[in-house]
Amino acid sequence: MAGALFLEDLAVGQVWHGGPIEMREADIVRFASEFDPQPMHIDVDAAGKGRFGGLIASGWHVAALVMRDFVDKAPFGDTPMLGLKVDDLQWRHPVRPGDVLSVTREIVDVTRSRSKPDRGVVSMRMTVANQDAVVVMSFLNLIQVPARTV
Amino acid sequence: MAGALFLEDLAVGQVWHGGPIEMREADIVRFASEFDPQPMHIDVDAAGKGRFGGLIASGWHVAALVMRDFVDKAPFGDTPMLGLKVDDLQWRHPVRPGDVLSVTREIVDVTRSRSKPDRGVVSMRMTVANQDAVVVMSFLNLIQVPARTV
Repeated sequence: MAGALFLEDLAVGQVWHGGPIEMREADIVRFASEFDPQPMHIDVDAAGKGRFGGLIASGWHVAALVMRDFVDKAPFGDTPMLGLKVDDLQWRHPVRPGDVLSVTREIVDVTRSRSKPDRGVVSMRMTVANQDAVVVMSFLNLIQVPARTV
Repeated sequence: MAGALFLEDLAVGQVWHGGPIEMREADIVRFASEFDPQPMHIDVDAAGKGRFGGLIASGWHVAALVMRDFVDKAPFGDTPMLGLKVDDLQWRHPVRPGDVLSVTREIVDVTRSRSKPDRGVVSMRMTVANQDAVVVMSFLNLIQVPARTV
């Protein structure tokens, strides 16, 4: 974990790397059985005959695992943050059992609040790729971060 | 479950209702322990002293439960669909143990593909409210839906 980073420490172009996230078939089926019980996520035989030719992970499972990786990596240290918004969340390629995912987190905008200058909003682009460097998911995360000084 | 609905059956202003989704403390802690292990989600004592004054659910947990409700309610019947994108996903109010959530799904746009007229994209606004009618989460979901006729 890095030391605590505040708004003044963050700048467009800073990048952190996350992962590896190993996708196991049992975990894919377990998550989807509870939250996204469609045949392509929970039934190996049906998935094999379906459009993806095999079991694929629920997109919400991948998103949840990327959140876990963010908590573990704590790029901003123990600075209290508040997720405000997710935009442009796309599942761009199937995630399959055995895939190993990596995450790239890049700051694309830093804006101090005009009305509340003790804080600001950081926009972070999250790009998730598999072991073949194919992007499987991406999204933009707007995060409220406290400032060190007003 | 409704009969299978295709692109021609869908129109702006159509609304489906989902829920109830009952938020249990044990489930909140279990999900967050695996995917979002921050004190506000997993540690009752620490959460009580934190900014929300008690345990709150991970936003990704709420999103996953809304997915489950979508699969259960199957507003489009067994029509094969493909989630393309999520935009404007906001967690607007804390979700706490004991909350009971409802979901409103409203079609806000229907566009047939020009290049591939056998399909189109439906934009559905998802609004999740608690038992006090306070909106806790909302997002826009772009879904690819097959057309009945070209």
